[in-house]
Amino acid sequence: MKSEIIAVGSEMLTPWRQDTNSLYLTEKLNEIGVTVAFKTIVGDRRKDLVNAIRTALGRIDILAIMGGLGPTEDDLTREAVAEALSLTLRREAAQVAALHTRAATWRVPLSSNNLKQADVIQGATLLPNPNGSAPGQWIETNFEGYIKLIFLLPGPPNECRPLFDTECLPRLRAAIPPRSIAKRTLRAAMIPESQADKLLAPIYTTYTDIETTILAHAGDIQLTLLCSKSDIETAQQRVDELAARLEEALGDWLYSSGAYSSDSLEQIVLYYLGLRGATLSVAESCTGGMIAQRITSVAGASRSFVGGAVVYSDALKTSFAGVSADLIAKHGAVSSEVAEALAEGIRLRTGSTLGVGVTGIAGPTGATDSKPLGRVYIGLSDSQKTDSIESTFRGDRDRVRLWTTQQALDLIRRRLM
Amino acid sequence: MKSEIIAVGSEMLTPWRQDTNSLYLTEKLNEIGVTVAFKTIVGDRRKDLVNAIRTALGRIDILAIMGGLGPTEDDLTREAVAEALSLTLRREAAQVAALHTRAATWRVPLSSNNLKQADVIQGATLLPNPNGSAPGQWIETNFEGYIKLIFLLPGPPNECRPLFDTECLPRLRAAIPPRSIAKRTLRAAMIPESQADKLLAPIYTTYTDIETTILAHAGDIQLTLLCSKSDIETAQQRVDELAARLEEALGDWLYSSGAYSSDSLEQIVLYYLGLRGATLSVAESCTGGMIAQRITSVAGASRSFVGGAVVYSDALKTSFAGVSADLIAKHGAVSSEVAEALAEGIRLRTGSTLGVGVTGIAGPTGATDSKPLGRVYIGLSDSQKTDSIESTFRGDRDRVRLWTTQQALDLIRRRLM
Repeated sequence: MKSEIIAVGSEMLTPWRQDTNSLYLTEKLNEIGVTVAFKTIVGDRRKDLVNAIRTALGRIDILAIMGGLGPTEDDLTREAVAEALSLTLRREAAQVAALHTRAATWRVPLSSNNLKQADVIQGATLLPNPNGSAPGQWIETNFEGYIKLIFLLPGPPNECRPLFDTECLPRLRAAIPPRSIAKRTLRAAMIPESQADKLLAPIYTTYTDIETTILAHAGDIQLTLLCSKSDIETAQQRVDELAARLEEALGDWLYSSGAYSSDSLEQIVLYYLGLRGATLSVAESCTGGMIAQRITSVAGASRSFVGGAVVYSDALKTSFAGVSADLIAKHGAVSSEVAEALAEGIRLRTGSTLGVGVTGIAGPTGATDSKPLGRVYIGLSDSQKTDSIESTFRGDRDRVRLWTTQQALDLIRRRLM
Repeated sequence: MKSEIIAVGSEMLTPWRQDTNSLYLTEKLNEIGVTVAFKTIVGDRRKDLVNAIRTALGRIDILAIMGGLGPTEDDLTREAVAEALSLTLRREAAQVAALHTRAATWRVPLSSNNLKQADVIQGATLLPNPNGSAPGQWIETNFEGYIKLIFLLPGPPNECRPLFDTECLPRLRAAIPPRSIAKRTLRAAMIPESQADKLLAPIYTTYTDIETTILAHAGDIQLTLLCSKSDIETAQQRVDELAARLEEALGDWLYSSGAYSSDSLEQIVLYYLGLRGATLSVAESCTGGMIAQRITSVAGASRSFVGGAVVYSDALKTSFAGVSADLIAKHGAVSSEVAEALAEGIRLRTGSTLGVGVTGIAGPTGATDSKPLGRVYIGLSDSQKTDSIESTFRGDRDRVRLWTTQQALDLIRRRLM
């Protein structure tokens, strides 16, 4: 079965915004054996929308169309799908009532425009959207003699994705023949990209029945292995065999490996902290809170992460992490000595098991003769020892900060392993 | 003039890879007055490619097609364009020679497949590609009675983008009537999306000669106004007139307005801090460093931002921000009292002019009978007063945290205004 994903919204035809929902949908569609043959991005013009919908229905079996279900004049997906299929729209009373209830609950005014969201395409089923006011719609219809499955989904990712999972996937599974796809994901940290390829390509290229994809981003490499067979046992066996060989090659660069998705580095760090009964604190200068932010993005982080300090000024390095002004004057704020003092200081101040201290030159200014842009020192302290590493990351401010957080998280992981 | 961008490559129909060249091309096309009406992503299947090309030519004037010009069997763009236009391909001798020279220089073998890259569509001009082996092609042709401009571009960004700049833009400028485009960008914080539309749509929809795009994301709204006229003065006048009316409507929700791009909320907060000679510190609980991270993402933040504390545990709320354990016990860690105490405490501890304190329930757990998921208190303290606001944000952990940082930054901005 072939599918097309249409993302609706003029903002996605600007240089500043890209559709990302389609990546999520593609993964889910692939898992049930549906190929994505086309993706189309179209603006909020009714004529263009109708054109895109008719084009899609002429070349695929399953259409997911995202966006344009909101209450504004620009939201035209319902109207366009109805026009493309020569079907009518009717305003559903129960849905109008639901909109009124929702508006009352959130104490927001309900304009007449808002009621558009209660319009249902002839023959369509409304798909409840607990995260927003616009419900999705699902319609199985005949287009030029062929049966087509069409989903209308809201555009915001936090509405689109759960709605697709709960309402669309079960309907698609029921409608299409089952296939067996085995999957595995491996993740590794801070392995040089060229080395990864040299190490891994000779292995995975010999498994021609497995589709191996490598994604690299800011010190993080993710390998995804997909194998489709008539029986799931054989597919799983093949994928597991390749995964085992890749895991061995990756050695301690590997930090997670899972059947469907694998844990992020933040999750792994928190997992090991929990396992060791350890707690963590951070004192961040150049990363300005980014390490703390990454760790606290994981639900339940508070069990092992106590917090820390953003010691952007030298005064705060002293008052929050107990780094002596003399030490800063002697070695400079960007030095291994200060990184270690930050790590030890924040650990002692917070009473945590582990302390991390980060200082560096994220740029674009601040480089000196002896310390280039991108120079970073990361200190790590526990009751046994305090040490640090020096790194120099290329790229702009964002990139240096991101690589630094990755390096810091990886150091914590390695200490805990 | 309307255009479509087709990105060719099965890898861009996986969950892991996205076309990004189109963002670059869109910006360049907009600058010369060409709208991008559709973007299509299609795999390396000849039939699908021909379908995508014919569809595009049926609905736009200018087609840029990227990828599929390489030497492998999967590279089918030349063949597909020729088929879609019912034109022939011929192998150009000079180009064959160039491929041989290139292979000799780089000492790589030249397979017979490689010679495909010397195939030229009937009537097309080859576009030299100094960064790769596959040249681009440019063809001006009649499709169903209309003149169409078509560019074939290599897929790798380091080949596609310079080739587009040097070879395509001058040809497009020569082929299309010159237009002058005036642009303006406005940004506003924390205005409810439905309210923004109600407030702004009646204004901007009356300016039918201006393309207004609204991007909304986590409490941030960005309006981009584009006006294309034969003379720049008229275009600028129109855009400025609309901008002035929108600015008035937005009132103090508006935080920045600029000719080409406008400053981010972080930049504005730092700008006002600098203007007032003020400094800022933060004590973050539920946002876990995210506010500090956003502020320090701006180069030069250290001039006004001293740092702060990530007070994830109650103990740290006390030791880093001086919040008494009694206060926490009495009102709960998530309370306006604790938010205010955090704000005042961090201001006094760091000696900054302004202090911000944040505490809330980001989820997915932690809600109580009186405090739902998404409940957040943000305290703000200066030498004159300390107060706080209560908000309840919907959505998952990420969303609640992001909205909270936006609300906090906006509060700081309003206090400084």
